[in-house]
Amino acid sequence: MRIVLGIEYDGRAFCGWQAQPSRLSVQDALEAAIAKMAGHPVRLHAAGRTDAGVHACQQVAHFDTEVNRSLTAWVRGVNSFLPAGLAVLWSRQLGDEFHARFSAVQRHYRYVLLNHPVRPALLAGRVGWHHAPLSLEAMQLAAQRLVGEHDFSSFRSSECQAKSPVKHLTRFAIRREGDLLLCDVSAGGFLHHMVRNLMGAMVHIGRGAAEPEWMSDLLAARDRTIAPATFMPDGLYFAGVSYPEQFGIASDPSFRHHLV
Amino acid sequence: MRIVLGIEYDGRAFCGWQAQPSRLSVQDALEAAIAKMAGHPVRLHAAGRTDAGVHACQQVAHFDTEVNRSLTAWVRGVNSFLPAGLAVLWSRQLGDEFHARFSAVQRHYRYVLLNHPVRPALLAGRVGWHHAPLSLEAMQLAAQRLVGEHDFSSFRSSECQAKSPVKHLTRFAIRREGDLLLCDVSAGGFLHHMVRNLMGAMVHIGRGAAEPEWMSDLLAARDRTIAPATFMPDGLYFAGVSYPEQFGIASDPSFRHHLV
Repeated sequence: MRIVLGIEYDGRAFCGWQAQPSRLSVQDALEAAIAKMAGHPVRLHAAGRTDAGVHACQQVAHFDTEVNRSLTAWVRGVNSFLPAGLAVLWSRQLGDEFHARFSAVQRHYRYVLLNHPVRPALLAGRVGWHHAPLSLEAMQLAAQRLVGEHDFSSFRSSECQAKSPVKHLTRFAIRREGDLLLCDVSAGGFLHHMVRNLMGAMVHIGRGAAEPEWMSDLLAARDRTIAPATFMPDGLYFAGVSYPEQFGIASDPSFRHHLV
Repeated sequence: MRIVLGIEYDGRAFCGWQAQPSRLSVQDALEAAIAKMAGHPVRLHAAGRTDAGVHACQQVAHFDTEVNRSLTAWVRGVNSFLPAGLAVLWSRQLGDEFHARFSAVQRHYRYVLLNHPVRPALLAGRVGWHHAPLSLEAMQLAAQRLVGEHDFSSFRSSECQAKSPVKHLTRFAIRREGDLLLCDVSAGGFLHHMVRNLMGAMVHIGRGAAEPEWMSDLLAARDRTIAPATFMPDGLYFAGVSYPEQFGIASDPSFRHHLV
């Protein structure tokens, strides 16, 4: 049978999602904990492979097992073997026709950016930071130019293994809450470092170093070297996954708490 | 001249506010950083001495110096010498008639409690946690019984050095936001461990182990041994200080971000 898990983690505690020889990844920690509950090794497949320092408020992953455990065991039992910065939120049993990665229709990220003269202390490592005032309006105008299907080569890391640089952004919404800018980005899929690279350009425009229209020039150039640098991972959250309705998994981005 | 600072910190990184031989306290880190900017040793006086693991979104402290530095230097300059979990938010110059501790009229704490079957991951160390459903209404009724002047001996740690166990609670407001219970407590002063001890009793009542009226019995008993155990420090925030208006320091509790 196929067990699906909703997962939350603080990216600072791990070297990213994907299994590594160091065994310090989120996947490594989860596979080890699940193996203890299952009594056999398991292989997890995730909706999105997050980088080092990137958080998740709702990652979705699945594994296969023949062992019968209650759905609670796959949550609380597994959590008892996990470190403090990582927890399974829910579990669900589905058939082989579900695949956490390949069934995903939309992936949702949120970037939380502290816009304040003073660096964060309580939220250090949990938000990006820019000290000078940012124009929300300019960033919103720039974001509108990104929505739709585009060649995102200018925002693609050199290590990206995707077959095509063309992606379809369905949403790039930005709003201010106090000193925080909340940037919600949705797409069927993303290139490597794409959200952080987009945020680099958004901050450049927000601080007035370029006009919002420049975002279209960057897209048209299809050249990573002319776009601003990759923005820090600290404020990036993998916020949720949408699957076809038949699987019964809530499709909205999940922000369990205030902050994210 | 007297320099007053607003300070934010993540309590997990320190052994509490007060200077220790280990030099691992918030006060130690701040005094060392300020001394580098001032060129001479300084002694900080804080409005509230928080315990290990207790956070602050707005601690207030002062020190004396004859050195002339811009108010920005006491913020950004000092911050450049501080670790990630600690930052000065603002600075202000005042006369000798101001004392961060003795001029304080009201102190404000917030306890953030995650009420969800699954333990926190993203907010580990930053919220208290209770897995079973809590009755907001019962807790609100119990809180009403605490407001006013009472002998709080039942909620006083054995290490408490206060002259009197009588304190005047001016506010104990609880509201739910999603899975979080936000508990705001204000008083002129608090006994050692008082908020955490009150939270222990609140959770006891919230989960139905006692009626709200029991809070009055606990107060009347003036006996720490019959009250529930001290609740975990993780969710406790020193949230602000009120001073007489003449000092021009914002008197409302400060919650710079969403979470707290």
